[in-house]
Amino acid sequence: MTKFTKIITTGVMASAIAAPALAQEAASQEAAVHTQFIFNSLLFLIGGFLVFWMAAGFTMLEAGLVRSKNVTMQLTKNMALFSLAGIIYYLVGYNLMYPLGNWMIGSDEAGGYIGAIGVAVMEVVGAGADTVDDLNYASTGSDFFFQLMFAAATASIVSGALAERIKLWPFLIFVAILTGLIYPIQASWKWGGGFLDSQLGFLDFAGSTVVHSVGGWAALAGAIVLGARSGRYGKNGKVVPFHGSNLPLATLGTFILWMGWFGFNGGSQLAMGTLGDVTDISRIFANTNTAAMGGALAALVLTQLLYKKPDLTMILNGALAGLVAITAEPLTPTLGQATLIGAMGGIIVVFAVPLLDKLKIDDVVGAIPVHLFAGIWGTMAVLFTNPDATLKGQLLSIIIVGVFVFAVSYVVWMVLKATVGIRVSEEAEIVGLDMTELGMEAYPEFTNR
Amino acid sequence: MTKFTKIITTGVMASAIAAPALAQEAASQEAAVHTQFIFNSLLFLIGGFLVFWMAAGFTMLEAGLVRSKNVTMQLTKNMALFSLAGIIYYLVGYNLMYPLGNWMIGSDEAGGYIGAIGVAVMEVVGAGADTVDDLNYASTGSDFFFQLMFAAATASIVSGALAERIKLWPFLIFVAILTGLIYPIQASWKWGGGFLDSQLGFLDFAGSTVVHSVGGWAALAGAIVLGARSGRYGKNGKVVPFHGSNLPLATLGTFILWMGWFGFNGGSQLAMGTLGDVTDISRIFANTNTAAMGGALAALVLTQLLYKKPDLTMILNGALAGLVAITAEPLTPTLGQATLIGAMGGIIVVFAVPLLDKLKIDDVVGAIPVHLFAGIWGTMAVLFTNPDATLKGQLLSIIIVGVFVFAVSYVVWMVLKATVGIRVSEEAEIVGLDMTELGMEAYPEFTNR
Amino acid sequence: MTKFTKIITTGVMASAIAAPALAQEAASQEAAVHTQFIFNSLLFLIGGFLVFWMAAGFTMLEAGLVRSKNVTMQLTKNMALFSLAGIIYYLVGYNLMYPLGNWMIGSDEAGGYIGAIGVAVMEVVGAGADTVDDLNYASTGSDFFFQLMFAAATASIVSGALAERIKLWPFLIFVAILTGLIYPIQASWKWGGGFLDSQLGFLDFAGSTVVHSVGGWAALAGAIVLGARSGRYGKNGKVVPFHGSNLPLATLGTFILWMGWFGFNGGSQLAMGTLGDVTDISRIFANTNTAAMGGALAALVLTQLLYKKPDLTMILNGALAGLVAITAEPLTPTLGQATLIGAMGGIIVVFAVPLLDKLKIDDVVGAIPVHLFAGIWGTMAVLFTNPDATLKGQLLSIIIVGVFVFAVSYVVWMVLKATVGIRVSEEAEIVGLDMTELGMEAYPEFTNR
Repeated sequence: MTKFTKIITTGVMASAIAAPALAQEAASQEAAVHTQFIFNSLLFLIGGFLVFWMAAGFTMLEAGLVRSKNVTMQLTKNMALFSLAGIIYYLVGYNLMYPLGNWMIGSDEAGGYIGAIGVAVMEVVGAGADTVDDLNYASTGSDFFFQLMFAAATASIVSGALAERIKLWPFLIFVAILTGLIYPIQASWKWGGGFLDSQLGFLDFAGSTVVHSVGGWAALAGAIVLGARSGRYGKNGKVVPFHGSNLPLATLGTFILWMGWFGFNGGSQLAMGTLGDVTDISRIFANTNTAAMGGALAALVLTQLLYKKPDLTMILNGALAGLVAITAEPLTPTLGQATLIGAMGGIIVVFAVPLLDKLKIDDVVGAIPVHLFAGIWGTMAVLFTNPDATLKGQLLSIIIVGVFVFAVSYVVWMVLKATVGIRVSEEAEIVGLDMTELGMEAYPEFTNR
Repeated sequence: MTKFTKIITTGVMASAIAAPALAQEAASQEAAVHTQFIFNSLLFLIGGFLVFWMAAGFTMLEAGLVRSKNVTMQLTKNMALFSLAGIIYYLVGYNLMYPLGNWMIGSDEAGGYIGAIGVAVMEVVGAGADTVDDLNYASTGSDFFFQLMFAAATASIVSGALAERIKLWPFLIFVAILTGLIYPIQASWKWGGGFLDSQLGFLDFAGSTVVHSVGGWAALAGAIVLGARSGRYGKNGKVVPFHGSNLPLATLGTFILWMGWFGFNGGSQLAMGTLGDVTDISRIFANTNTAAMGGALAALVLTQLLYKKPDLTMILNGALAGLVAITAEPLTPTLGQATLIGAMGGIIVVFAVPLLDKLKIDDVVGAIPVHLFAGIWGTMAVLFTNPDATLKGQLLSIIIVGVFVFAVSYVVWMVLKATVGIRVSEEAEIVGLDMTELGMEAYPEFTNR
Repeated sequence: MTKFTKIITTGVMASAIAAPALAQEAASQEAAVHTQFIFNSLLFLIGGFLVFWMAAGFTMLEAGLVRSKNVTMQLTKNMALFSLAGIIYYLVGYNLMYPLGNWMIGSDEAGGYIGAIGVAVMEVVGAGADTVDDLNYASTGSDFFFQLMFAAATASIVSGALAERIKLWPFLIFVAILTGLIYPIQASWKWGGGFLDSQLGFLDFAGSTVVHSVGGWAALAGAIVLGARSGRYGKNGKVVPFHGSNLPLATLGTFILWMGWFGFNGGSQLAMGTLGDVTDISRIFANTNTAAMGGALAALVLTQLLYKKPDLTMILNGALAGLVAITAEPLTPTLGQATLIGAMGGIIVVFAVPLLDKLKIDDVVGAIPVHLFAGIWGTMAVLFTNPDATLKGQLLSIIIVGVFVFAVSYVVWMVLKATVGIRVSEEAEIVGLDMTELGMEAYPEFTNR
């Protein structure tokens, strides 16, 4: 007999006649709880492999948008950052993010600030109802698997912005700090039940702020400290276009990210074991999809109007910005609202990409417009569809997270720059990182140099 | 207490002693219904993201089979058509396709012809048993998500056939009409319970006719009105081979489509909440897979015999034709029958591709043989394995759908041709659509022109 | 009333008063069994499409690692081998592998050696509790679908090692023998309940030995009989590097394989219908992921240390070796142990690749280090985390399987070499198999030859 049936059956043995029915009821309720546990865990497993898939999406998107001489480096960085992020998250991040009340600094009631220390531990093999960590939630293994992917996604965002001139190892050091400290600490403030959640009532369903803007702030700090690619901005302030070397790959990456986002947002419902939960997940899937469509179409129409020619890279980033924008609240909007929230994301991208260039902030793949700007927009847009959101809660949380992540990232980048150096030599940059840093071309037979 | 338990408990309160057991039975039955609802909705969510993935598959297949000078356009068209199709389907298509008895023209009994007008509306957030639209089916959100992907797939079929010479915006206008009117109206005739279903007993499990041949007919009409690519057919009637620029991409696209088809056919079971349903879905998965294998192998062997060399693009299209062929009835065949049905699809493709060229119908990727011809074959093949199918029902439905879709498509293409024009200039075609229409090369560093 | 409820209700009709509750209990238990059946079948369906996806992963990995002149052939071989393997497995392999006690040679008790003959047969359409093959397991269709993918994966392993010089048709003959006889016979020894399982207590959860080393042994035999690629090993014993033509494709292939491995290992739990099973699957997902991360990071660090430059292809193979290594026991290790088991896989690859070259065994993609060496390591590593494993059981089984597969494969390759020939001419090899064997270039516009 499990812990659960013990609780249920205690105190209900009112009469001998009722006993069989009551015991039966207890068994039936226990089965229902187990079924819900399975559905919830399954949601995390499916959601997790979909968000894992986003790692491939970021990799393909970035490999397609850099010049061919830097592709092997971009591939290497993505493989390495994902692997490193995952292991660091296991060692430090998971318990820092989910202290389950055991805050090192703060408390659930007064506001949590810094979570717990320790490696992630899953349930024992062949767990029963009395050995799973939380019978009314899901298996810890599935939760860990799912959450790990979010930490890795945050790091992936940074990689694209800083492409084509950053050194591999300093970048990986930053990834370790980002996924071991910066990301989980700020994530604990909301998703670990910390002060943004308990004191400010901040709402961020799947991470427009907690994941995407965090990656965006870290990328922005890095882009500023690192400086633009050699030759990117002419003397007269003119932007020299650097063309992505493989647009099918970038498009594939976008489709992969779009697909993975169903897991990203849908899994963030955190439960699938009830009729209400699965119906909500269904809303989330449909809204996530339509926001991406809205973002893509908005960028298509807007680039046609502004430049007389549709711009594929803007359309791809428009779809992604739509996805980022809906991530803070994929549940409450109607399909129409979700489409508009996504469309605004696409519009933001089309205007923000040239704006960053004007500021000489060189973001190779458009990660800052997509993940930071559309992330802020999405977080504010919660106000339009979810009555529980407050202007103060949303705005203040965006600022607190932004200041924290940008400041810490900036300091880390500056320290790395001052110590090991973060940038390859100009010659290396001109020749390409693939040959100078790795000695391996991505397309040895294709390029017509 | 939910609506369902109310119904169950009414009239069964026969005795006071029996009451606890009966109340318990009602609760247990309610739980079972909820569990089935969750499974059914989950089927649509998984099926939906798999069919979504087919959009990436079409995109990669087409991008790999066109020449490099037209790749960016093909990518742009696919991103745009998917997004547009989805939003149009939300605005118009979904209710037109599923009137749930509220026909504008016709009725469930006498035969439905034109469905209902209105945007798609999902259940409320946190729906309960009394607020879901159909407790014995699945969440409307999941159903909408799944069905939207089918509408988009129909449009994707058209895009490949007309590649390398069609203008972007007129193409998108056609997509809007196809996914907003043509597709949902004819789909309502069968899947909305309309006259093909109720009067003719037409059987088309997952859409060999309703989806694939519809895309194929629309593509055929477009290919005829649009004309062949410049230089494709020599003066002497000889076909000038235009080589696909990236066969790994085309192969990847085929694998993606194959994977997505498990959702396409499996999800079309429409339920997973019973032992019988999941066993049927298992049959469908295995049959879908083996039909693709049969189609690929048949094309491999046949091209070896006919041309002394296996032809990869035929093998890819053979696998896809196998998938299209099994789509009308993936459930009833045995594994052996399914393999043969798929193999015949592969054989059809090998013979139909040169036949179309003889007719100077220029189908860039082989979409018409794969989706139209194999779709017709698959629809007729239902007769071999499903005793409920009638020759009249299948044949007449193929003809009715074909005439409707081809005629309307032809008129729309002609009107577009006469008004805005549908074809780029010959110079643009020779230079490539990427530079002339979009100003962006797909592989700026690779091509040795 | 189903078979199950009959059993339950027989002999429990103790009293008239208890009857309603007991009938209710029987119904409730029946529902629970059905729910478990659905979950179990769903696990195979999801696991199956994920392992299917690995076919695309192998294809992309191999297409990326061969030179551009052999890419079309590599794509053709992968499409063909998957299709052929699946159909052969249906015709012969499935029942040979799972005799369900009906051994042609041997018995469950004394040890099974050769399974049963016959094509695979799924349950009837609309199966009920009394017509499914095993109510306490999963639908046969889903099991067949899942297992078929493993047979195909085994064949995929061989294809990469022998690339760039083997003829298509002899290769496919070998694939037929491998997937129709070699693979299912040795797999029956463990997974069909044969003598390795019943007599030796061999443990191999998802196939480090049964799948991966089998592919590896077959590849090794083939590589020896076939000989190295022309020009690969210089007169002075120096290895001439042949560069992969498309590293983004190889990286994509690795990500695809990694994703598919969640199905490969997770699905091998064979059940998801209980709280314990889903918790175990969660462990497996997390461990599988972290082993890949460990393998990738180990290869990254080690190549940096050894060669002063990280080597992307080693990192990719390191991740894959980590996955192979954890496959024999993805359940019992902790996250830390799984990371180390995977890391050791990555280390093995970094040392084994040059070792094979020293032996002039030319393995184009590193399949032998990844699948054979890391497979052996993973099979032995079970001893560290699973107390049920015995040194004798593991070691002897590795040897028995290795001797059987290598010897039979070697003979088959020799016979093929002596009869139809297995190698293209040297001219063909220099020109490339794409033009000489298939007449179709993979990238007709890119290569700068």
